[in-house]
Amino acid sequence: MPVTAAKPSGLAGVVAGETAISTVGKEGIGLTYRGYAIEDLAEHATFEETAYLLLRGELPNASQLDRFRNTLTAMRGLPVALRTILENIPADAHPMDVLRTGVSALGTIEPENSVRSGSAVAYRLLALNTSMLLYWHHVHTSGHAIVTRTADLSIAGHFLHLLHGHPPTPLEERALDASLVLYAEHEFNASTFTCRTVASTLADFYSCVTAGIGALRGPLHGGANEASLDNVKHFSTPAEAEAGILQMLANKQLVMGFGHRVYKHADPRSALAKRLAYQLAEDRGDTALLPIFARIEEVMMREKKMFANLDFYSAAVYHFLGVPPAMFTPIFVIARTSGWAAHILEQRANNRLIRPTADYIGRAPRGFVPLEHR
Amino acid sequence: MPVTAAKPSGLAGVVAGETAISTVGKEGIGLTYRGYAIEDLAEHATFEETAYLLLRGELPNASQLDRFRNTLTAMRGLPVALRTILENIPADAHPMDVLRTGVSALGTIEPENSVRSGSAVAYRLLALNTSMLLYWHHVHTSGHAIVTRTADLSIAGHFLHLLHGHPPTPLEERALDASLVLYAEHEFNASTFTCRTVASTLADFYSCVTAGIGALRGPLHGGANEASLDNVKHFSTPAEAEAGILQMLANKQLVMGFGHRVYKHADPRSALAKRLAYQLAEDRGDTALLPIFARIEEVMMREKKMFANLDFYSAAVYHFLGVPPAMFTPIFVIARTSGWAAHILEQRANNRLIRPTADYIGRAPRGFVPLEHR
Repeated sequence: MPVTAAKPSGLAGVVAGETAISTVGKEGIGLTYRGYAIEDLAEHATFEETAYLLLRGELPNASQLDRFRNTLTAMRGLPVALRTILENIPADAHPMDVLRTGVSALGTIEPENSVRSGSAVAYRLLALNTSMLLYWHHVHTSGHAIVTRTADLSIAGHFLHLLHGHPPTPLEERALDASLVLYAEHEFNASTFTCRTVASTLADFYSCVTAGIGALRGPLHGGANEASLDNVKHFSTPAEAEAGILQMLANKQLVMGFGHRVYKHADPRSALAKRLAYQLAEDRGDTALLPIFARIEEVMMREKKMFANLDFYSAAVYHFLGVPPAMFTPIFVIARTSGWAAHILEQRANNRLIRPTADYIGRAPRGFVPLEHR
Repeated sequence: MPVTAAKPSGLAGVVAGETAISTVGKEGIGLTYRGYAIEDLAEHATFEETAYLLLRGELPNASQLDRFRNTLTAMRGLPVALRTILENIPADAHPMDVLRTGVSALGTIEPENSVRSGSAVAYRLLALNTSMLLYWHHVHTSGHAIVTRTADLSIAGHFLHLLHGHPPTPLEERALDASLVLYAEHEFNASTFTCRTVASTLADFYSCVTAGIGALRGPLHGGANEASLDNVKHFSTPAEAEAGILQMLANKQLVMGFGHRVYKHADPRSALAKRLAYQLAEDRGDTALLPIFARIEEVMMREKKMFANLDFYSAAVYHFLGVPPAMFTPIFVIARTSGWAAHILEQRANNRLIRPTADYIGRAPRGFVPLEHR
């Protein structure tokens, strides 16, 4: 007899393995990458330094960083076959599906093998995610097949340059760069755990990252950052926002951008994203949007004791940078590829197949009934 | 201080959730799908009946089965954009990467949405995996853009028809059909668990299946069936095989196709695959190959107490059916899509984000060092 399903636990609090890459800290309030506090990295390190740190375990010195940047910069060109594939992905596709398909397709064109290592694939994907996304975007909006090789030194600069057709200001570049640092890595989140599970079968690097993109797409994970802005943009004043959010709470609707599976009291990245948002608002002279964000944050804390997570103010940052909402989660991909890559390599270094078991709650054994008697 | 990594457990024996779809039985020796023994299903049910059972919970009656077959048969045509994408995937790509990319690309062309349900996507993928794989195959081998719509009633018939260019004999069709039944479902194996983890973020159906294909690709999971034949084809007599396998064991080399994470004494599917292999060998008058298989099975049991798993004799079945080894794991995809789909729908019906935690074994917190001081 089937048993009524209990509330699933989703492996909450279950230790699925070991990692030396990041930790959310003993009290569940801090976040470090390879021992460095997220506050220090977001303030003082570029995304390229952070990606190097995650992948190699140590921050680069100046010449190592130069080489790393040059390697990535040289990898921004799209293979002809991949361009054709991107051109054949419909204009109305979700950009996450474009990236998922692009990464998978690249794996058929430049497979991981004895001469192209997992690390080499990681570098290529760090460089090429932006090119794939924005090549597809421009082909279908302006009809223009853009040249994806630019001289921008950073991935953040490359992204904003390709998106808008001109290099960003130093403040814009730095804001996106810091946001990529914040999104780079977060222990055994669902997409990273997916990457590790796929890696544990000894599948190739592209299979792991393709799977990670799929997991990140969901609104209970990365998809939340796109949805965060949806809450806010309906409101034109803080008072309107307060009334609207109270109404959503009364209707038991989910307000995206709040709370977190792992953090119980605060998301340490939220204050950092908030500061970036205020810097951009000041630069633009926009005094309307952030008071709405602040009021929603206040109402959620007062009414539900829920804190803003990274996604909430990141949506404001991306809005000020002119990024279309459908590209918010793809930016998460661009950043998290560094964390995924570090975890895939870590999983491989001390691997065992990830294969849990299930409680069976289905039908008891039953005799077969031939088709003619059904 | 980093701690020396312990042997990772890979969640072995850890219950990650509940399922009503299949069970490996209390003693770890049996296998049932929705309560029906695998022996009954492999002997008496077609793959289409099995897929219907997995997805809907009950075996279809004759008219339900007719409708299901007709639905699948009508879904064998490839969209033009997908054909172009497949044409742009290199000839030397691994067929698993082709399927992973094809499924992901289809998700951009025919996305899951309010009018195209998850079940509809599942049916489409059940029908189209074969078309995608063999369209790509023929374009790059004969240069011929094949018509993927055929009148074959079964997926097994469709596959062999497209592969060889003519319909199979009833015995050939039935052998592949029964093999698809054996590979259709297996509880929380790594690829199915990957599908469920991706589904738990509420990602779309294609993201889940794309991720599952990636996980299945690895040699510690589905990739093993391709590798199984590699062991065997080097040997031309049983005596040679015995010497060769003993040498492999002495060298501590892995012999693929033996043992299983969940089964401890025998894989109940192995005897069923073995019977199919003997039927095909007899039909072909081949008396050379299976004695080599049998000797390897005997040596592995005698020397290592390891039993043949499903992959071992399946490799012989596919060999007799003229399937290229690189397509062995894609056949696993065609079959397992039914199990994946059932698990994705089950996960969605009672969902919680799958997000475990990790033991941190990395660096203690350390102060940031500016670039110029590194």
